[in-house]
Parts: sequence; C-alpha cells; structure tokens
Amino acid sequence: MRRLVAVDWGTSSLRGALIESDGQVLEERSFARGILSVPAGEFPSVFESCFGAWMAPGTLCLISGMAGSQQGWREAPYCACPAGFGDIAAQLEWVEPGRIAIVPGLSVDSGGVPDVMRGEETQVFGALQLLGLDNTRLVLPGTHSKWVTVIDRRVTDFSTWMTGELYALLRQHSILARTLPAGDPAPDASAFDQGVGHALRGPGLLNTAFSTRTLSLFKRLPTDALPSYLSGLLIGEELKAQTLQRGESVVVMGAEALTARYEQALAQLGVSVQRVGAGATWRGLRAIADTLTIA
Amino acid sequence: MRRLVAVDWGTSSLRGALIESDGQVLEERSFARGILSVPAGEFPSVFESCFGAWMAPGTLCLISGMAGSQQGWREAPYCACPAGFGDIAAQLEWVEPGRIAIVPGLSVDSGGVPDVMRGEETQVFGALQLLGLDNTRLVLPGTHSKWVTVIDRRVTDFSTWMTGELYALLRQHSILARTLPAGDPAPDASAFDQGVGHALRGPGLLNTAFSTRTLSLFKRLPTDALPSYLSGLLIGEELKAQTLQRGESVVVMGAEALTARYEQALAQLGVSVQRVGAGATWRGLRAIADTLTIA
Repeated sequence: MRRLVAVDWGTSSLRGALIESDGQVLEERSFARGILSVPAGEFPSVFESCFGAWMAPGTLCLISGMAGSQQGWREAPYCACPAGFGDIAAQLEWVEPGRIAIVPGLSVDSGGVPDVMRGEETQVFGALQLLGLDNTRLVLPGTHSKWVTVIDRRVTDFSTWMTGELYALLRQHSILARTLPAGDPAPDASAFDQGVGHALRGPGLLNTAFSTRTLSLFKRLPTDALPSYLSGLLIGEELKAQTLQRGESVVVMGAEALTARYEQALAQLGVSVQRVGAGATWRGLRAIADTLTIA
Repeated sequence: MRRLVAVDWGTSSLRGALIESDGQVLEERSFARGILSVPAGEFPSVFESCFGAWMAPGTLCLISGMAGSQQGWREAPYCACPAGFGDIAAQLEWVEPGRIAIVPGLSVDSGGVPDVMRGEETQVFGALQLLGLDNTRLVLPGTHSKWVTVIDRRVTDFSTWMTGELYALLRQHSILARTLPAGDPAPDASAFDQGVGHALRGPGLLNTAFSTRTLSLFKRLPTDALPSYLSGLLIGEELKAQTLQRGESVVVMGAEALTARYEQALAQLGVSVQRVGAGATWRGLRAIADTLTIA
C-alpha cells in the first residue's frame, strides 16, 4: 500500500490531496489551474509545480476529471456503461507508467445519442463505498447536473442536465435579466417552492421561464424573490423529467447550498435525500489505488 | 370611412402604412425606432417625424404593439381573455381623442400565472379575417413565440414560448458555443429533422441541448450541421408541449424562413400548416378603424 496523491483536475479548478495508505488525508491543496488555463504541453510542468513536492519515490498519483479529455493532459478513452468500479480501475491511462495515471470517464449511448462524464464517476464510486450502497440513484447538481443510476454497484445509465448553465444564461443574458435584481438578494424559500411547483405542473421551461417576467409585471412576486423563483423553475424542470417515485430516496452530492435546494425541491415530490460527506472523490481514488496495490 | 395610418410599434422596430378607406395600402415605411430607442416624453416627436406627413386632417392613426406598454408612449391596459375583435376595438387607449389611439394587448391567467401579448392580437384578428376562419390554432414563431387558440373568433387562450431567445442564448453564450461554428453555415434540413425528432422523444431541453455537444464530440454530426440540429431541438421542444393532433392544421404567421422550419417540424407530428400572406397587422388595424367609422 503506497501513499497516494489524489487529484481532481476539472475545467476551471485543480484540487489535490496527499492520502496515507490507511486513507487518512494528510494535506489538501487547490489551485485556479483548471485545464482551460493550461496551454497544450504544459500539463507536466503545472503538475510538478503544484504537486511535485508530494511525489516522493514510490508515491502513486491518480487524476480524475477533465484532465483526461481531448483538451486535457492525455485523453483517457471513456468506459462504456454499464461500468463498475473495477472497470475504471482496469482502464487507467498511464501518463508515467507505475507513477501517474488518469482515471477514464464514462459514456452511455441512448438510441444513438451519447452522453459523457469525467470526474463524476470517481465521486459516484467513492460515495457508494462511503454509504455502503449497491443500488441507488444519485444526482450531482451543478452547472451540468448528472443523474446516475446504479444497479449492483455498476453505473447502468446516466444523463446530463444543463440546469445550472441555463439558470445563469437566463439570469444574466435573457430578457428576464431586465426584470431580475442586479445583485444577489437573500434566497426566498417560498418563491423557490412556487417556481418548483409551477415547473412540475407546467408545459416546459420555454414557457414557464416567461412567467418570471409576467409575475413581476403583474406585481405578484417582488423583485427580490425572482432569482429564487427562477432557480425553482429550473430545478423543478430537471426533477420533473426523472420519473421519481413518491417514497423513493436519492443521493444528492454537491455544494451545501445547492444540495439544500434540491432537498427542498425533491420534498414536493415526496422524495427523500441521502447526503454524502465531503471526500467522495478522495475515497474513490484511494480505492482505485488499493486495487492496483493488491494486483 | 377615413384614411388610416396603421402603425406597428414594437420593441426594436417601427413600421407604418398609409391605408385607403377601401383597404388599399398606399405606402409603407419602417424605421429603427423601436420603443427601446425612444426616451420617455419623445414619443410624440418621433411619431410626428416619421408619420406626420401622412396625418392630413381627418386621418385616423391606430398603433399596435409595445407602444402600449409601460415603457411605451401610453399604457393601454390589457384586455382579459377570452377576447374578440370587438373587445379590443372598444378598449382603445386614445392618445389624441379621435385622431391617434393605441390598441390594447391581451392577457390571460392560468392558475394564477399571467401571460401577455402586445401586437400579436392585431395580427391574429387580421389573419382570421384574411383566412375567413372562426376556429383555429395559430403560432407566431419568433424570439418569443405565441401559440393562440381561437374559438368562435375569440382568443380563448394563448401562451408565450421563449424559443428563439433560448436558441440565441445557447448558440452564443453557452458551452455549446465552443462546439458550434462561428459563422452561419447553410441550413441543414436533415440535421434540423434529427433535432426535432430527438426533442419530441427526449426528456426535456435541459438534457437534449447537451446532445449538441456529445454528437459533435463523437463525430456523429459535422460542425456545420450543429446550428440546424440545435434549432430543431428548440422548435421540437416547443411543439412537443402543444398537444397537437395528427391531421390537425395550424396557422403559422412569421418570417418566411422561420415559417418553413415550423412547417417542416410540424410535418413530423402529422400536422399541416396554413400560411398567412403579409399584411395581417394592416388588415387588423383597418378593420378596427372601420368599426369606429361605423359606430
């Protein structure tokens, strides 16, 4: 069992952890060096400057996230779903054999239309270990939310939802930006619930988004409530499409404030939430490292 | 029967026509003087500079569109639906009594959520007269598409769809902008159909929009086909929500290229299209003027 440098290298951020063989996280670092900020050919030097001090002889480094994309350090071909923990552990893309490897993302094909993830697979497998779950649905809310179905510890299906990005586009660049307040008023839980409810009953976002404007025009919602209402519309639209059963439980993994919003929205559907503590990515990468040592 | 100066004063454009008492259009003019370009208080002088020469003594002017909004010349309160031609003709907002009036827009309330239109009501009533229809559904595609239900020549219901605006936001400001071509390649009818089909079968725009990226990533669609594919996704999403019946016919009123796209998309649902020639707004305003003269 070797020390591990676990790295989550995304589009806009770079995080790392030095992890002892027993799983203890000794130190964490983060940098504003997402892959979009790294010119081609400079990944080795950025890696060395950020984590070189941790790479004592015999130390292993595993990297998950967009570093394995075409625009990243080295392309790590997607594992096709259904895929389990063992599949991604067996298909590492070695940048330096025995020393630095990139974890592959997952792909799925639904009627000729592909979907992809990079980084979330490691979070998901880490979460399954942390929670001791074999079968569940998980949502990783964010700019591009992922909904993931796990059966017998394998990811059998997943889908991407541009929820956070559409919220930002409507908030900043659409006609609604003229109606919405310039700053960020305190979240309004009631307006958020109203947005979720309208989305769940409504005919689709292209129509319901416009109600943000008309409810303001008719003075049925105060200006400071509109961002929360719009957020509810977007998240409600995402949830509406998931065919969730009343009484079901889903795992929500994300930033605290966003997780709380999803929990509030899911309550309207009678769906309960199981949260995952921080560190699912580190747990996932540590588990892959252990597989290698055993092998 | 008096000569009419018919004006369509929208958010970004100003158009006018001088119309003889028998309906003949003598002259048309258009200006880049939408209401957003007119400072408060300057509507009379802009009107005078654009159309003053047409306003011989005894001439009537009727204005439809956003000139009747809170940010316009004078607010013309909405007529609540169901509303017929006679209702809007009876609720003109007179800027100069007997000489210049603004046509009110329509509002509808669906479970506490209002929707509004300004200008489209005049186009719709003009189209009903041009086509000799008493009962139909109409769509006015655009930045904010309107779907309108007419029963016994009254608008009983309508809804707004931010289809064109969402297309532009996704095209220009989203992550998809990195994948889409910079210029405007020739329309690709096959990719458009593929987008419509995926939207009709898919779980919602928040998800299907992402396929624009993955189909490109997996080289299943060439870059130049992506704008048409995305357009198909947006229009398909709008149509999916309309509960259209196979064999039904709808009236489509809009710019030629956009009308053709809707016709192509509606064909996938087995819905046929009835088009309206240019001039529905002028016909609607002339008909309102005739009501006044008769009264």
